[in-house]
Amino acid sequence: MDLVASLLEGNRLSLARLITQVENRTSEGLAALSELFPSTGRAHLIGVTGAPGTGKSSLVNQLTLAYRQPMKETSGRRKDPLRVAIVAVDPTSPFTGGAILGDRVRMRDLAGDPGVFIRSMATRGSLGGLASATAAVVQILDAAGFDVILIETVGAGQAEVDIARLAHTTLVIEAPGLGDEIQAIKAGLLEVADILVVNKADHPGVEATERALRGMLQLAHPVPHIFHHHGKLERVGTPPVGQIDQCDWIPPILRTVATEGIGIPDLMDSIDRHSQYLRESGEWQRREAARLENELNNLLLEALMSRFRTSMQEAHYGSVLSEVLARQLSPWQAVEVLINGGNR
Amino acid sequence: MDLVASLLEGNRLSLARLITQVENRTSEGLAALSELFPSTGRAHLIGVTGAPGTGKSSLVNQLTLAYRQPMKETSGRRKDPLRVAIVAVDPTSPFTGGAILGDRVRMRDLAGDPGVFIRSMATRGSLGGLASATAAVVQILDAAGFDVILIETVGAGQAEVDIARLAHTTLVIEAPGLGDEIQAIKAGLLEVADILVVNKADHPGVEATERALRGMLQLAHPVPHIFHHHGKLERVGTPPVGQIDQCDWIPPILRTVATEGIGIPDLMDSIDRHSQYLRESGEWQRREAARLENELNNLLLEALMSRFRTSMQEAHYGSVLSEVLARQLSPWQAVEVLINGGNR
Repeated sequence: MDLVASLLEGNRLSLARLITQVENRTSEGLAALSELFPSTGRAHLIGVTGAPGTGKSSLVNQLTLAYRQPMKETSGRRKDPLRVAIVAVDPTSPFTGGAILGDRVRMRDLAGDPGVFIRSMATRGSLGGLASATAAVVQILDAAGFDVILIETVGAGQAEVDIARLAHTTLVIEAPGLGDEIQAIKAGLLEVADILVVNKADHPGVEATERALRGMLQLAHPVPHIFHHHGKLERVGTPPVGQIDQCDWIPPILRTVATEGIGIPDLMDSIDRHSQYLRESGEWQRREAARLENELNNLLLEALMSRFRTSMQEAHYGSVLSEVLARQLSPWQAVEVLINGGNR
Repeated sequence: MDLVASLLEGNRLSLARLITQVENRTSEGLAALSELFPSTGRAHLIGVTGAPGTGKSSLVNQLTLAYRQPMKETSGRRKDPLRVAIVAVDPTSPFTGGAILGDRVRMRDLAGDPGVFIRSMATRGSLGGLASATAAVVQILDAAGFDVILIETVGAGQAEVDIARLAHTTLVIEAPGLGDEIQAIKAGLLEVADILVVNKADHPGVEATERALRGMLQLAHPVPHIFHHHGKLERVGTPPVGQIDQCDWIPPILRTVATEGIGIPDLMDSIDRHSQYLRESGEWQRREAARLENELNNLLLEALMSRFRTSMQEAHYGSVLSEVLARQLSPWQAVEVLINGGNR
């Protein structure tokens, strides 16, 4: 039986093998990816990002454990535990040290549960490469039938924002007392946040952190994908169920203590509400479209560069480069020469 | 008089205007950049990066103030104060909030000194775009005769690593007690570090941070650009002056308390030693070449995508995209169709 059929029947080893093939961009892996693509689009993709030291990994673990519980009678929304995949992306590390460390902690809590699949990804040369690879791995997990895919990123740069754009719902995690510069990072991440979580809420300074976040939320309009109907902030808080289609989504601010499981049920509830909002407002479709178009453009860019490098004569490139190194030709002029055969 | 001539005569307003033109990629700006390019290559480019909350901005301020002091009799190395430019790059923020905040703090200490020039840059859509723009701005400042250009980045992702690659000497700043996940970030940044600084060294936990850094330094071989001759760690510490050409550069670990100016003279001394090492070992030339080739490749990529978008018929792209959105065609197949006119 081939890998694709075996994966669709739930074989974990086939899943792991196919992911490795896709990461390495083997022709078999890419063919399988295209074959699986029509089966994608069912999973809820949840991005989890935030500054270092906020306890993202613990939060992802707790969320996973909670999704693996059988339905509680009172909630009335879920019947079976959801199948959960975790993709831990570390754009900062060419080594895999960080990712492996996080995995060891995870293994202790989640090992042996066949409804949980964990995969770490580290930097693979170019940023575009990492975002593309992550998108591809998420598609395989989606096709393999995982209901929830948690995409966790370490750090807080453009890489995280790019990877967060893969998700339907993005959680931005903060923690009290991480220093002054954290403000700058909040501003950048706020744009992609659907739900704000103040983790380590038992630490001193939690009120100040929450107040700062609330202030920035109110200042940071327009935030187009959140307030797209009216372009301004109308209210703060989670809209009540049933009125969701009539109003925009305002990111709620929640407190958690992930290491003790505190606040996790409320967080899951917010994630459910956001999913409902996305589907009822048509935003789910819009985000899917934006995500796929973005992925297409990234792949186009990679393919164009690769084709250009193949077609260009090494000697010509080398002679132009050596003129740049001698500062006889600026890099901008060199591009003209290489692409358009311009004069020097 | 045109902007280029006026800039070369030291006019600050022309400098600021030209930078804006280059950031906006006006044809006048790009022509000026090519005209100035032969005058570049004199400045010492110093990258300053590290996790949020480590006090990078304060450290950059203190370094700048120190470089602006007249030579001390005992040092015997400098006669006049050096001219210093600061480029503050914030890849995390589509808003400029963070950068502007940092600038206000700077202005208080450095305002009115004609030997100091400060420029903030925030995200401009794509990461490649920001790295290219930063490279261009640094070239202008180099041509304008600044002796030292401090390139400060907020955050710790791939963006910072890319921008750090612009520099001859990269300082990676740490601080005690920033949490567990900081380990993962250190691993990624360690690869680009020439000098490690533990700032806020008056805070508790400084020994543990320094010990962790030293441990990682010893573990993290091979670090090719640092240990390129032998491929393994031979000793830890700054090599003595005079023996520099016979051994590799081992990143020293220094303690500072930037807010009080503590440790700044030692840091400047290490920067001087690194500059001397780069020149004596031939590494300066190698880094210049790597940097320029990288810039050329980034510009090529941007130009290829732009040319492709111009040449492609919108309708064709749109129809292929809509097949992707309907999940009839995978993004990988779509790239084949768009670039090679492949079958569907």
